[in-house]
Amino acid sequence: MASDFRTRTAGAPWGWDDAHRRLSIAVVGATGAVGRELVELLVAAGHPANRLDCLARRYDKIELENRQKVPVRPLETTQDASAFSGFDLAFLCTPTEISRVLGPALSEFGVRVIDLSSAFRMRDDVPLVVPEINGAELAREGRLVANPNCTTAIAALPLAVVDREYGLDEVLVVSYQAASGAGAPGLATLTYELRREAGLPGLGSEPKSPFVATLVNNVIPAIAEVDERGTSGEEQKIQDELRKILGRPDLVVESTTARVPVERCHSVAVHLKTKRDVDLRRLRELLARAPGLALTDDPHGPRPRDCAGTDPVHVGRVRAGSRGSRSLCFFAVGDQLRKGAALNAFQIAARLSVER
Amino acid sequence: MASDFRTRTAGAPWGWDDAHRRLSIAVVGATGAVGRELVELLVAAGHPANRLDCLARRYDKIELENRQKVPVRPLETTQDASAFSGFDLAFLCTPTEISRVLGPALSEFGVRVIDLSSAFRMRDDVPLVVPEINGAELAREGRLVANPNCTTAIAALPLAVVDREYGLDEVLVVSYQAASGAGAPGLATLTYELRREAGLPGLGSEPKSPFVATLVNNVIPAIAEVDERGTSGEEQKIQDELRKILGRPDLVVESTTARVPVERCHSVAVHLKTKRDVDLRRLRELLARAPGLALTDDPHGPRPRDCAGTDPVHVGRVRAGSRGSRSLCFFAVGDQLRKGAALNAFQIAARLSVER
Repeated sequence: MASDFRTRTAGAPWGWDDAHRRLSIAVVGATGAVGRELVELLVAAGHPANRLDCLARRYDKIELENRQKVPVRPLETTQDASAFSGFDLAFLCTPTEISRVLGPALSEFGVRVIDLSSAFRMRDDVPLVVPEINGAELAREGRLVANPNCTTAIAALPLAVVDREYGLDEVLVVSYQAASGAGAPGLATLTYELRREAGLPGLGSEPKSPFVATLVNNVIPAIAEVDERGTSGEEQKIQDELRKILGRPDLVVESTTARVPVERCHSVAVHLKTKRDVDLRRLRELLARAPGLALTDDPHGPRPRDCAGTDPVHVGRVRAGSRGSRSLCFFAVGDQLRKGAALNAFQIAARLSVER
Repeated sequence: MASDFRTRTAGAPWGWDDAHRRLSIAVVGATGAVGRELVELLVAAGHPANRLDCLARRYDKIELENRQKVPVRPLETTQDASAFSGFDLAFLCTPTEISRVLGPALSEFGVRVIDLSSAFRMRDDVPLVVPEINGAELAREGRLVANPNCTTAIAALPLAVVDREYGLDEVLVVSYQAASGAGAPGLATLTYELRREAGLPGLGSEPKSPFVATLVNNVIPAIAEVDERGTSGEEQKIQDELRKILGRPDLVVESTTARVPVERCHSVAVHLKTKRDVDLRRLRELLARAPGLALTDDPHGPRPRDCAGTDPVHVGRVRAGSRGSRSLCFFAVGDQLRKGAALNAFQIAARLSVER
């Protein structure tokens, strides 16, 4: 089952060619869950080690899936922007407050920046890009590009197909989000809790949890702070960013975001209405051949365990809703460390114009 | 946190009085997850052991939370209906196909029957009852009463409050359902898989899973068979049964049902529209004082771990939606073995007219 879903290919995938391999690249925040994934992708794409600098808070190293060890050197966040002047491109896998400082500083030194935090996503002068949807935005001036929220990116890919063909009228997104959406500490916490729940002896010290409650055997029905209207930060991001990525500032978006005890891959149940009548057979064909999507006909899929480590957003359970002839439902699963974060950022880099 | 939610009281709760304690009661399917819970409730309510018969496929015993052991005797399903003639009341915690045979047979022998399967729920001559909502239906003639689907019962309680006050226009239910919703085998499977995932040695033989895929670290986005239109059996039940319980045959109901790695308690994200404008403050007051409901002001709650073993349906995240001024969202969690099954059936029994 799982192997059917895997589309990662050996060699140099994702259009990363010799011109890209001549770029001098910095990955900032390389020891986090997303940073590691990005280094994996760059190495798998054949990017030379001497043109790849990994930076984090302190000296460290990361071990790749192929056992290769990559050194990590420390970055004194605010003072060191000049140290980047030799780079062509920097990926910022950093917390929002660090990105806010580094992003503009690096741009000024002529470095192209792809930022994975929420620091710049809603700024009018910064493109927010899922390449398959609005890659054309990358032609705009400016050295800074924002990578979207992970749940948003996963929901956006199939929604863009529906919007192009039938016009989205309103969208409901209800999420089942993985522990690693909260980064390496989220994953470490779930792993620890799972072992404790199973009664495994000799657990060692408990990691500091990024969650408000125990996650194993639980559902936490809000992600990030909840504002005075009762909307969570994650729900606000989904609304704002979907509108920007789809170029539909008027789109009605409602959502509930919840954390579930899953290591990796976010899932979303999507219920929507369209402006025009939907031909389900044609829609399934469009979804099946859309770049970045994989359509499953498993009536009980897609499922996160099968999708972990894969590139596409997996879509299934495409069916008519019962809220009139223009209502539609589907279920989508994507590896939020890949398409939801590192892979999408990498694809943005692959689409940037490169001196050849 | 958890202790705040517990409302189970010592002694004789839920209106089970001396007249009820004179009833001769059979629990059929007593060794299943719901059957056990029902026996726990009857014993906790002080029902005498000599007026309680536990039946299942073979000789067995069940051990209660208080360590008391209750004997279980075998029932030859089709032949033994006459053996029930001495009973006043039978709870059928049996598979649908067994209930289909036993229900009418027992009724003919003058036994009142509360059936927890889906065998009779949609029959016009059988009331489908959540006592707080449509307990008045129990005054109808007939010896057979149906207990609703677990997810439906949990969603129905808060929805009934909204419907009474503001009139429901359309309802979306997206579920996060626990392993024990698939009974004792579901729970045993999740427990086993969790230990295997944690690397615990000496696991013994693997239980036969009722799920289509590994549940630990996963989400299975459809429950029961999926029909040719793409609707799952669970989704169909939610639509049909909500309409019947709320007495709203025209109500538009759409849903996605998914299984998550949680031992106990179903959760639902509900997004709805009303016919009249909603005053959120007033609605919260109504929810807080409605029988069978508990309102939480935890912005990241309610959560299944805290609600396991409790009686009420816990409601939180009550907020305005973005689909117009009459859209509303909330999140609800209920112990599906209690309010979703055994407790609701027990409450039905407590409301049946009893010779005094």
